[in-house]
Amino acid sequence: MKEETLTVIFEPIGRRIKVPRGISILEAAKKAGIGIRSECGGVGLCGKCKVIITDRETVSKITETEKKYLSETEIELGYRLACCTKIIGETTVFIPSESRLGPRKIQATGFERKVELNPAVKKFSIVLTKPTLSDIRPDVERLLSTLRLLHDTAGQLDLDYMLFGKLPEILRNSNWNVTVAIWNNRKIIAIEPGNTSDKIFGVAIDIGTSKIVGHLVDLATGSTLCVESLENPQVMYGEDIITRISFASSSNDNLEILQKLVLEGVNKVIDNACSKAGVSKSQIYEIVIVGNTAMHHIFLGIQPRYLALSPFIPAVRREVNVKARELGIDVNQGAIITVLPIIAGFVGADAVADILATGIHCSKKLSLLMDIGTNTEIILGNSEDMISCSCASGPAFEGAQIKYGMKAVEGAIEKVRICSDYEVEYETIGAVKPYGICGSAMIDIVAELFKHGIINRRGRFDSKIDTPRLRKRNKTLEFVIAWKNETAMGKEITITQKDINEILLAKAAIYAGCTILMREKRVKEADIEKLLIAGAFGKYLNPENAKIIGLIPDVAIDKIEFVGNSAVTGAKMTLLSVEARKETEEISRKTRYLELAANPDFKKEFINSIYIPHKNLSRFPSVKKLLEESGSHVQI
Amino acid sequence: MKEETLTVIFEPIGRRIKVPRGISILEAAKKAGIGIRSECGGVGLCGKCKVIITDRETVSKITETEKKYLSETEIELGYRLACCTKIIGETTVFIPSESRLGPRKIQATGFERKVELNPAVKKFSIVLTKPTLSDIRPDVERLLSTLRLLHDTAGQLDLDYMLFGKLPEILRNSNWNVTVAIWNNRKIIAIEPGNTSDKIFGVAIDIGTSKIVGHLVDLATGSTLCVESLENPQVMYGEDIITRISFASSSNDNLEILQKLVLEGVNKVIDNACSKAGVSKSQIYEIVIVGNTAMHHIFLGIQPRYLALSPFIPAVRREVNVKARELGIDVNQGAIITVLPIIAGFVGADAVADILATGIHCSKKLSLLMDIGTNTEIILGNSEDMISCSCASGPAFEGAQIKYGMKAVEGAIEKVRICSDYEVEYETIGAVKPYGICGSAMIDIVAELFKHGIINRRGRFDSKIDTPRLRKRNKTLEFVIAWKNETAMGKEITITQKDINEILLAKAAIYAGCTILMREKRVKEADIEKLLIAGAFGKYLNPENAKIIGLIPDVAIDKIEFVGNSAVTGAKMTLLSVEARKETEEISRKTRYLELAANPDFKKEFINSIYIPHKNLSRFPSVKKLLEESGSHVQI
Repeated sequence: MKEETLTVIFEPIGRRIKVPRGISILEAAKKAGIGIRSECGGVGLCGKCKVIITDRETVSKITETEKKYLSETEIELGYRLACCTKIIGETTVFIPSESRLGPRKIQATGFERKVELNPAVKKFSIVLTKPTLSDIRPDVERLLSTLRLLHDTAGQLDLDYMLFGKLPEILRNSNWNVTVAIWNNRKIIAIEPGNTSDKIFGVAIDIGTSKIVGHLVDLATGSTLCVESLENPQVMYGEDIITRISFASSSNDNLEILQKLVLEGVNKVIDNACSKAGVSKSQIYEIVIVGNTAMHHIFLGIQPRYLALSPFIPAVRREVNVKARELGIDVNQGAIITVLPIIAGFVGADAVADILATGIHCSKKLSLLMDIGTNTEIILGNSEDMISCSCASGPAFEGAQIKYGMKAVEGAIEKVRICSDYEVEYETIGAVKPYGICGSAMIDIVAELFKHGIINRRGRFDSKIDTPRLRKRNKTLEFVIAWKNETAMGKEITITQKDINEILLAKAAIYAGCTILMREKRVKEADIEKLLIAGAFGKYLNPENAKIIGLIPDVAIDKIEFVGNSAVTGAKMTLLSVEARKETEEISRKTRYLELAANPDFKKEFINSIYIPHKNLSRFPSVKKLLEESGSHVQI
Repeated sequence: MKEETLTVIFEPIGRRIKVPRGISILEAAKKAGIGIRSECGGVGLCGKCKVIITDRETVSKITETEKKYLSETEIELGYRLACCTKIIGETTVFIPSESRLGPRKIQATGFERKVELNPAVKKFSIVLTKPTLSDIRPDVERLLSTLRLLHDTAGQLDLDYMLFGKLPEILRNSNWNVTVAIWNNRKIIAIEPGNTSDKIFGVAIDIGTSKIVGHLVDLATGSTLCVESLENPQVMYGEDIITRISFASSSNDNLEILQKLVLEGVNKVIDNACSKAGVSKSQIYEIVIVGNTAMHHIFLGIQPRYLALSPFIPAVRREVNVKARELGIDVNQGAIITVLPIIAGFVGADAVADILATGIHCSKKLSLLMDIGTNTEIILGNSEDMISCSCASGPAFEGAQIKYGMKAVEGAIEKVRICSDYEVEYETIGAVKPYGICGSAMIDIVAELFKHGIINRRGRFDSKIDTPRLRKRNKTLEFVIAWKNETAMGKEITITQKDINEILLAKAAIYAGCTILMREKRVKEADIEKLLIAGAFGKYLNPENAKIIGLIPDVAIDKIEFVGNSAVTGAKMTLLSVEARKETEEISRKTRYLELAANPDFKKEFINSIYIPHKNLSRFPSVKKLLEESGSHVQI
């Protein structure tokens, strides 16, 4: 009898492999050349090989060993141990980042303006006079009157009610010598025995569609102790925002699943950061959260359905403050979660933080800020006026819908150069044999193919080019980036005509957004004094190539700045400074939003932008010049 | 073999009975003549015969039938069904009031000043304009701007974060026509589809040491819909405050048991009130709580240990606001629990509410307010100055430590008159055969015995009195109130020398407190323009007899007013009026507290007050005159 073989897909890498029925997930991953952590060698003793299976019917039943290593929530969410779980059907295995081996390239830091240290949470160490029969002030009133005497804590202070229960014991056990944590000059959120005023930490977190990045910050000194990141575990319910909104929309149970996943992810990021930095979680008093509006809504348990339905209305714009314990975030019991304000349904708190971090809202210079991702937010303006829009650029640059596309993780080709003899030079993340191509390399490839006349301005392959790399497969042309013997899977990595079309559609959406914003503000490319590129693939991007394909406007290279993950650094600024936090409110309120779906010109601009670099070449003078100089084969 | 008999004590009535081993609790209660509800006749089908057993070893194991009728919390707290539980050891059975048959005499209403209706919670019905592509304000901002236009809701409004999640659906499902509940002009606590502005209710609750009383109030009209009361289920851990503080002090687990019990009690009171009035619990938006400081602390989960240790410091004086859901009180999800401010460790929020309800703080008349209970709070003053103290009067008037003492429940003798031939006339609550004597009757008995010369000014029996009712038992004298054939137990109800001593100690503590306060304010009995008596036994008390025994100062009868449970009515005033609520803050802050334990004169005054009516008879001129006129045998 022939052995039955089953197809298994490993996410988020997108690797497919055929394996015999009954093999463990860990063995299957080894066969596929995918590294999963397994300190014990696969015998159920370390609990490190956690994976997530959404279709429980496709694998063996959960074992007692697994129950030892997995929390109830994890089991509910479909977590399993790869070494204990046997494949019995066609299945998809999601490997959470903490279980993956090898370096990951997540843009976890970014440009950050310096702020004066003035966090919302402050600690005051005080010594109270002991009560006597002639001084019978109650504990709370005694504490408050001493605080008022010693510190400028203006106004009426609230106390988190959980503190009442502990206060009498804390005061007496510490000999009336305590430290008080006050949030926003308004609320006492913690009271601790002794002087703990130097133990005061906060976390800034960016919840991206594909990743969660956290910075653990010492609020006494302002320094960042640790940066941690994790793939957003919601990825298993869809790579892009629209898929996740549609999943959440279908039932409130689904929304709850997504919320639980992101809360779990945030808890893990905090947990990992605290372990690394040697900080106790109970000494985290505030967490600032940014994210796009869909992530923002799901994090707060808000149904995001209406974000995807015209007229695309979010539930709440302004800053939201919630007790961490109400959401189940495991830090100090009184800690506050501050979710920064958003701008609109598709321009979220991450964009507000981008603006804050780059400071374009307080500069007189006209700046164009692009946060490129599955959704690309674009902001154009200066201290006088700002306008924003969001482009559904799609997940092409994240690797989806591209034949050999993948995320910027180990094994991804990240840089590509094509020589005059059509030979290809490339670099791979982790310097290993490549599995596929990530976003920055896609841009390189399209630009290089174009420069060498291998594709024309519509992105079509020129079949007359004489190189074995350009070949026909299934009736369409494709270009070989890496030969069979060079790759990890033992087959060629190519870029197909369809891939190029996808990339051009993505860049066209982004550039059309830029055009509409510039038209709305009546400015031209030459007026742009600063072009800021934020987002995951930020600094790995070749700006010349980005201009050549027409992803970004044609401005001088010295005006272009890569600001990296400025969303998380903007969040961090608000953790460190209440003044910066106030700015976010103003940014959110004043930044106008332009709904591209409602703009009559958008479609035309989009079609004009599908060309390389654009239908109207005069908008890209430097590209025009480059082509003329290089004597390119490309017809101008 | 002789059948084993076991002693069972039924609380809170304090009835003891010997029963054969293995009998059910329901049968034992029947033997003891105690009514327990049992609609099904004791076959485990109605679940009404709930009792509480704290020592689980003394009864049979819990049955599956019981698990059907008892909640998890109830089982944890020792609840059982009397018909299913067999007695296998000497045990104490607590019968919660909801399981008891027959009328109970709980003073559940009281004097109440009229206030202008202006509750902290208000509802506003609004219709929003629908969003369009050219009006993309988010839901929260749209709601707030409409609210601001239509209603005078000053300042920045907070939203309970739980509302964010529901808002998008509510707005769209109600066609943008909603009702908003706002607490204190500051916080949106509920948003409901349609116009529900006439469905707005609140509950005022007095948590007494022995009972929980609740008033369900319609906040749209100001009318009281229903009054409900329940014995405080904490009673099974001690009759008086000090026993309960000492139980809670021994561990935080014990504190948690007491807190759970009181929360359960409050939930039951609300539940019963809502069922009776046909009000949905989800339409209760605020609950105002008063209680003595120990009850206040335990309700909030605050360790009350330090209330009983010199210098007797409470944890918090000022008003506390907590979300109902944080404490597990089952009403509207956004509802606020407001715990009114206290004055000191033994003068609690109940006393603040007493003052508010009687209005002595805004009258020029010098008033003496006495809230008589296990702990008696006394307040002396007027609009210019008020001083308070607390007397540990003990639970004698509640029936404890008195041989045939009992609470004012069915079967208690509540009024007594002794005739010139020493014969006794009495009235019983429920007009049934008596089980024992409650507080008001004790005062009558001592006064009557004194008036007829059966006891002297030190409360000693005069053995020369010739009546079969005065007899010697166990070497001490006692007086028969009811003969064997008249009582429910078939044995005499008597008052013993020890009983009289206990009563005099209790009244002495109270009167000494009055004396110290009067001395502190430099006033005499004649200066008192109003004497207000609050508390459970309020209006059942004979004021003449109270003066005769020296429980209350000798003021003219027309100056005496019984105000009943003014604590709960004071609480209700603050539910109805934010102005009244502001007054409580002022009352709490301005009322001075005098710690009797620290007063050098207290002991002497206490000893002087053990006499009937007082060592210094000139302080009771009306009693002196009465005795002279009646030609009493008592030596003056």
